[in-house]
Amino acid sequence: MPESPAVPITLEGSYVLHQLFRFNWKTWRALSAAERERIAAAAGPKLAEITADTGNGPHSALFSEVGHKGDLMFLHMRESVEALNEIELQLAQLEFFDFLEPVYSYLSIVELGLYESSAKTYTALTARDIQPHSPEWNKAIQETVDRQAGAMATRLYPTVPDAKYACFYPMDRKRGEEVNWYTEPMAERQRMMHEHGMIGRRYADEVKQIITGSIGLDDWEWGVDLFSNNPLVFKKLIYEMRFDEVSAKYALFGSFYVGIRLPVEKLSHWLGGTLG
Amino acid sequence: MPESPAVPITLEGSYVLHQLFRFNWKTWRALSAAERERIAAAAGPKLAEITADTGNGPHSALFSEVGHKGDLMFLHMRESVEALNEIELQLAQLEFFDFLEPVYSYLSIVELGLYESSAKTYTALTARDIQPHSPEWNKAIQETVDRQAGAMATRLYPTVPDAKYACFYPMDRKRGEEVNWYTEPMAERQRMMHEHGMIGRRYADEVKQIITGSIGLDDWEWGVDLFSNNPLVFKKLIYEMRFDEVSAKYALFGSFYVGIRLPVEKLSHWLGGTLG
Amino acid sequence: MPESPAVPITLEGSYVLHQLFRFNWKTWRALSAAERERIAAAAGPKLAEITADTGNGPHSALFSEVGHKGDLMFLHMRESVEALNEIELQLAQLEFFDFLEPVYSYLSIVELGLYESSAKTYTALTARDIQPHSPEWNKAIQETVDRQAGAMATRLYPTVPDAKYACFYPMDRKRGEEVNWYTEPMAERQRMMHEHGMIGRRYADEVKQIITGSIGLDDWEWGVDLFSNNPLVFKKLIYEMRFDEVSAKYALFGSFYVGIRLPVEKLSHWLGGTLG
Amino acid sequence: MPESPAVPITLEGSYVLHQLFRFNWKTWRALSAAERERIAAAAGPKLAEITADTGNGPHSALFSEVGHKGDLMFLHMRESVEALNEIELQLAQLEFFDFLEPVYSYLSIVELGLYESSAKTYTALTARDIQPHSPEWNKAIQETVDRQAGAMATRLYPTVPDAKYACFYPMDRKRGEEVNWYTEPMAERQRMMHEHGMIGRRYADEVKQIITGSIGLDDWEWGVDLFSNNPLVFKKLIYEMRFDEVSAKYALFGSFYVGIRLPVEKLSHWLGGTLG
Amino acid sequence: MPESPAVPITLEGSYVLHQLFRFNWKTWRALSAAERERIAAAAGPKLAEITADTGNGPHSALFSEVGHKGDLMFLHMRESVEALNEIELQLAQLEFFDFLEPVYSYLSIVELGLYESSAKTYTALTARDIQPHSPEWNKAIQETVDRQAGAMATRLYPTVPDAKYACFYPMDRKRGEEVNWYTEPMAERQRMMHEHGMIGRRYADEVKQIITGSIGLDDWEWGVDLFSNNPLVFKKLIYEMRFDEVSAKYALFGSFYVGIRLPVEKLSHWLGGTLG
Repeated sequence: MPESPAVPITLEGSYVLHQLFRFNWKTWRALSAAERERIAAAAGPKLAEITADTGNGPHSALFSEVGHKGDLMFLHMRESVEALNEIELQLAQLEFFDFLEPVYSYLSIVELGLYESSAKTYTALTARDIQPHSPEWNKAIQETVDRQAGAMATRLYPTVPDAKYACFYPMDRKRGEEVNWYTEPMAERQRMMHEHGMIGRRYADEVKQIITGSIGLDDWEWGVDLFSNNPLVFKKLIYEMRFDEVSAKYALFGSFYVGIRLPVEKLSHWLGGTLG
Repeated sequence: MPESPAVPITLEGSYVLHQLFRFNWKTWRALSAAERERIAAAAGPKLAEITADTGNGPHSALFSEVGHKGDLMFLHMRESVEALNEIELQLAQLEFFDFLEPVYSYLSIVELGLYESSAKTYTALTARDIQPHSPEWNKAIQETVDRQAGAMATRLYPTVPDAKYACFYPMDRKRGEEVNWYTEPMAERQRMMHEHGMIGRRYADEVKQIITGSIGLDDWEWGVDLFSNNPLVFKKLIYEMRFDEVSAKYALFGSFYVGIRLPVEKLSHWLGGTLG
Repeated sequence: MPESPAVPITLEGSYVLHQLFRFNWKTWRALSAAERERIAAAAGPKLAEITADTGNGPHSALFSEVGHKGDLMFLHMRESVEALNEIELQLAQLEFFDFLEPVYSYLSIVELGLYESSAKTYTALTARDIQPHSPEWNKAIQETVDRQAGAMATRLYPTVPDAKYACFYPMDRKRGEEVNWYTEPMAERQRMMHEHGMIGRRYADEVKQIITGSIGLDDWEWGVDLFSNNPLVFKKLIYEMRFDEVSAKYALFGSFYVGIRLPVEKLSHWLGGTLG
Repeated sequence: MPESPAVPITLEGSYVLHQLFRFNWKTWRALSAAERERIAAAAGPKLAEITADTGNGPHSALFSEVGHKGDLMFLHMRESVEALNEIELQLAQLEFFDFLEPVYSYLSIVELGLYESSAKTYTALTARDIQPHSPEWNKAIQETVDRQAGAMATRLYPTVPDAKYACFYPMDRKRGEEVNWYTEPMAERQRMMHEHGMIGRRYADEVKQIITGSIGLDDWEWGVDLFSNNPLVFKKLIYEMRFDEVSAKYALFGSFYVGIRLPVEKLSHWLGGTLG
Repeated sequence: MPESPAVPITLEGSYVLHQLFRFNWKTWRALSAAERERIAAAAGPKLAEITADTGNGPHSALFSEVGHKGDLMFLHMRESVEALNEIELQLAQLEFFDFLEPVYSYLSIVELGLYESSAKTYTALTARDIQPHSPEWNKAIQETVDRQAGAMATRLYPTVPDAKYACFYPMDRKRGEEVNWYTEPMAERQRMMHEHGMIGRRYADEVKQIITGSIGLDDWEWGVDLFSNNPLVFKKLIYEMRFDEVSAKYALFGSFYVGIRLPVEKLSHWLGGTLG
């Protein structure tokens, strides 16, 4: 029986770019009210365009961020890296962006990890003595991918969930000298991911999450976006998860960025010093 | 008997934001005395408003920080993340803030960890064969939370303690390859936290502390604020704790920020170069 | 029989310099259209010269980078470190470079690691009782080097592959307290590198790679450039490799830089806010 | 017999603040000679005041630092954190400080660790069945503290030693997963500290040291100041100590800052480009 | 027989300061040609003085550095730390230095580690029952030091080797929880250093090296300068060494800085954008 691959099947959807900016209040306030209005107004159409509702919700959204790490965050979801780079370039043309200093960004792609389907498919194929990466194998995998991608299309190409608060953080799986996610057998990883998912399920009513993969795209392996009307849920969920095996032993976390959804039509309030 | 959860019950209260700024003395001193007075006076009402005494003390306070890490620190405690972000935005509108460069911040929420109640409640419930996260379980937990939250309301929604010095630092519990707080059995963690608390109790007359949780909110797991009229107590307390098991083996510390309480009415002295 | 060396034979080709810049949109947009045109036009001949097609492709290329890590990246491949430094100096003379802030760079040299040839050659020579580093040994090694360098000349002195997207990242092999690439026996390293190479081979149609060595030249041990028309392949390839033994246990990664090929003749579009 | 505490008795004296600045030569040299003279002269009295000899030597001193980490360093020793913050504020009022960019600082307190007295006292008290932290225990400890503090008053409240060179560095004791200073038995720590001290004693003629504690005050656990007329002694002493058990296994070091004592009356020479 | 010390004898010679600067091309090019000429001419005599040939070569040299880490590097070797600080101050007075931003520096002292002499001397002395650090011991050690220092004077007080390329990097010996250079027996360290030296010897014709010690002087334990007409030799040498035991297990490396020797008389070419 051939050796089953260690790599789970993943599905990918929209490319995602987070852009975090610090706002230069000093130079902004130094302008006359008329100038400020002119500049904000000039930015309006482009900001409205990228955050327009697509039916289920928008593919870009703006957040008022808490703390010194940044003041405004854009979250963009698009069909290609090129489209994301185009948005970056277009935004950079706005006079409004003279007041925004880029301080962080994150490039990733919506990802669904199919640990359970992978295990089933790999077991079935190796039982039939099909060699991994043979044409027959690849065809069967592609069928699984296509079937699942069809079923999960709305999760692969999401819009920005309608919630007041957002929390973003990047993360890795540990590759220590003894504790190493990537050398754990697939069945063990599947078991741990399953337990991890069970916790998330209990919070499903209160928090929406978008998992993005970023191996080969940015400095961590995954990015996580959580959306909720209650930011305490971010803490409750992540604290509880910290005790499950996959997080306790294998999770490494980057910085956490917490913000409040800022509808583009309220940006003028924000520029006047209130969430509005 | 069902397996008892690993996660202790926590109570949460006010959201907390620390804001640390460096003051630009060069541009400040370049102004005329009249300009400096005008700018400070214009900032007065907002600073007075946010630091107003609520009866037991204020919910915001200002500190003159020692060293290059920053010159002024605000500590804000409010009912929501949104309210904290509003304060940030309002302060940013003051001309006075042209002289303040944001260099650090920390978002967290007042937290009381109920290791002892959790152990008792979990033991009682599992002994009655109640499944964790079942409706019956959740109801019992909620009763514990409500009872304790009522009893501890003043600790959950504190005002800024009246003391001359403050020390803030963020911290984590270690998740090493062998030494891992989050895989220790709950009873062990409870025992270590109890011993840890016993040390704190001996210092209770000299130092007040506010523990805040920040998992999912900021880059470390907890923030600690200590308040005392004698900064040597910060050293004595933390040095003694460093030898207790939970700190010696599991504590990871961020930067330490030490400051002197600066009543808003003394800010004009400070701007003139003295605490006095 | 003499002890066989631990160090595999490597072949080296072109020296490579990556230059990453942040573009100062604010000062650029503050110029009149005529000024912008003049400055871009003045930079044109030098940029055209260094990115000119050499027959198989150019030895320098420009990329529009995604995210805050930088806006424009140059990739230069030349015959010497001196030639690379000359290009740096020449580019720095262009008025256009007033708008480019250097934020990262990487110096390395195209490298082919000959694990299999090394093993064969070392085994043959030690079997004949030839001492490593003796004149006879050195002569035999030199013959291997010359023969392989001849056969692999186009890989040692590559041009920039014709593809829409590029991904660059530096990496190390781990030297932990227990897991240490450099103390593994050569045969083990050869086996792991072989398995690693087999994964790459399956992606050969979709991605071209240039491996450069940078021990003694820059802060990591290797730099990797991937080129593809589909950036998802970067993720798929590197994710799959992360589970092979050499990556799972021994790979340490720096930052990842993803960009879109920007033909010099489209730079004026880019400066106008579009990839064109 | 009660369990003896793990925490050694420490004595504390003066609070200490190191302030490191980079000097802005460009804006300084852009001034006319008359302006430069005026600004330096205006700073003179305050600098003279804080560095005035107190009989045995001054409580503040100025150093010309080597390298890019900073150009001028102040070392201040005062009776309280408040007094140190006052000095910071006063110095910040000088026009001279327009040319000084704060790049580092360190807050700590002179500390003498009484490993030997602690061991003796703890042993005697536990032998008499006295419980740690009981009133009787506390009284006996306080007596030890008072007796030792009296005997060591000049070491607790030092002036700046009269030497040409100074070396400052912060340090921690390691708390690794296996090698952990804070879980070592007190007797072991006492033995290692004794051996450590024996090395220092051999260098006592050539180097003066001031050890300061900074747990709860700054980012490392201790700060070390060495003073000598021969900077080679810094290297000889610290290199030899690196092989003793407490340093080899448990010491973690921050940055090293080396400077040359700059008498305030020679500051004008320094500003003219020579140590004088 | 007394216990032999763990610390090898070292010889020290010239103090060394590396200064790395980024050149501000933008403000430089903004000047008129006449201004640029005037400023460069004014810097000429001081630069010529410090880089003057002393007979065997100069004690300071200038390098054109590759990449964003810096543009110009000075390497100074002098008799004292004070003399190095004087040079820093003198260079800072030049108007030319308005265009140089200090980005890195390294303070160290030329060091020769006498592992073999130490072992012999220690063995001989302990065999005669002479106590380490006794007057008799110290006298014998001093004799060894004097004899060796005489024999190695030209290596202790070197001039800058005449070569086209230079590579500088700082390094430490690891003090991990299990793998710890400083707890290895002296005989083991001597054996590993000997093997390490044998590799260097094979490259002696192609590369000159200057090892400097920096414990107590700067942030790493040693600095290494390599000089060669072929920068590929830097990679070949350091790659081969990475597999020897002392490097594979115990070496920790800082950043690598690669540059091209820039004779002061060619600085005006460089300022015009060419090495030539």
